[in-house]
Amino acid sequence: MPGYTDRKDEHLRRLRRIEGQVRGLQQMIEDDRYCIDVLTQISAATKALQAVALELLDEHLGHCVREAVTAGGPEADAKITEASAAIARLVKS
Amino acid sequence: MPGYTDRKDEHLRRLRRIEGQVRGLQQMIEDDRYCIDVLTQISAATKALQAVALELLDEHLGHCVREAVTAGGPEADAKITEASAAIARLVKS
Amino acid sequence: MPGYTDRKDEHLRRLRRIEGQVRGLQQMIEDDRYCIDVLTQISAATKALQAVALELLDEHLGHCVREAVTAGGPEADAKITEASAAIARLVKS
Amino acid sequence: MPGYTDRKDEHLRRLRRIEGQVRGLQQMIEDDRYCIDVLTQISAATKALQAVALELLDEHLGHCVREAVTAGGPEADAKITEASAAIARLVKS
Repeated sequence: MPGYTDRKDEHLRRLRRIEGQVRGLQQMIEDDRYCIDVLTQISAATKALQAVALELLDEHLGHCVREAVTAGGPEADAKITEASAAIARLVKS
Repeated sequence: MPGYTDRKDEHLRRLRRIEGQVRGLQQMIEDDRYCIDVLTQISAATKALQAVALELLDEHLGHCVREAVTAGGPEADAKITEASAAIARLVKS
Repeated sequence: MPGYTDRKDEHLRRLRRIEGQVRGLQQMIEDDRYCIDVLTQISAATKALQAVALELLDEHLGHCVREAVTAGGPEADAKITEASAAIARLVKS
Repeated sequence: MPGYTDRKDEHLRRLRRIEGQVRGLQQMIEDDRYCIDVLTQISAATKALQAVALELLDEHLGHCVREAVTAGGPEADAKITEASAAIARLVKS
């Protein structure tokens, strides 16, 4: 099971809200809403996505990485390298 | 008309694709997909949102801000201050 | 003259403080300080650099871009394209 | 010893180069260099700082967090919570 199993409902709830924000953005464009108002909503949706990512990452460290480290062996190294790469992608996105 | 009027279809097309990505994220969570794969998709959706924002900002500078500056008066200052605030929100999101 | 001329002293003061933060980071590494404390200082220095960039960008829009737009001609387009590219680099850094 | 012990020289070398970049930024401001050129250099220095942070974080996960997890007990939880908070600060800076 992935690290976020205990909080699936919470993540789904937040992602549904973000989906609603992205649909709302399309409506704003359709309605010729002012550029700056559209940008404000994009910043809000981006922050919400990043917040979900940070939660998932925390759970990944607390479950998947922790279990691999406890089990030991080369899998632990692989998991840490993989987590670092995901963090780098997040920082740059 | 907002600065992005000429490119509404393009923006709508990109936002629909991002909406699909966010729906795909929900499916990944439902299917207990591996945390790192979910994170990779979140980074992709975040980058796509930021790309739409940068396009809108470019069009806003090229139309709304430019027109306010050409017209002159206090509206020009207000538009520049407002654009700077939107850029700051984008950099921090 | 560049757009930030009126605020050179302020920018220099902030950059000197950031230079001090970066020198402080070297001292922390020399002293084997705890990783998380080093990371906290790097986040602070990064935020301070971004704040200087946002100020410079605001002044650039309010002076250089505004003057080019007022003067009209192809230079106005070039300045807006150039500003958008700088904003994109900032968002991605 | 902190997690980055094996790579102290490499980190010091990179931080000295960043210090040089920040000093170069002051010289650019003194010399009234063009705003966009200053911004380009700020983006470069910011990226370089983030790169050092990502390295330190990788080493922190691979040493400090890994050791705490292997040792087990409440310290493991604390280390993971602390790492997640540092990652969040990095993503937002």
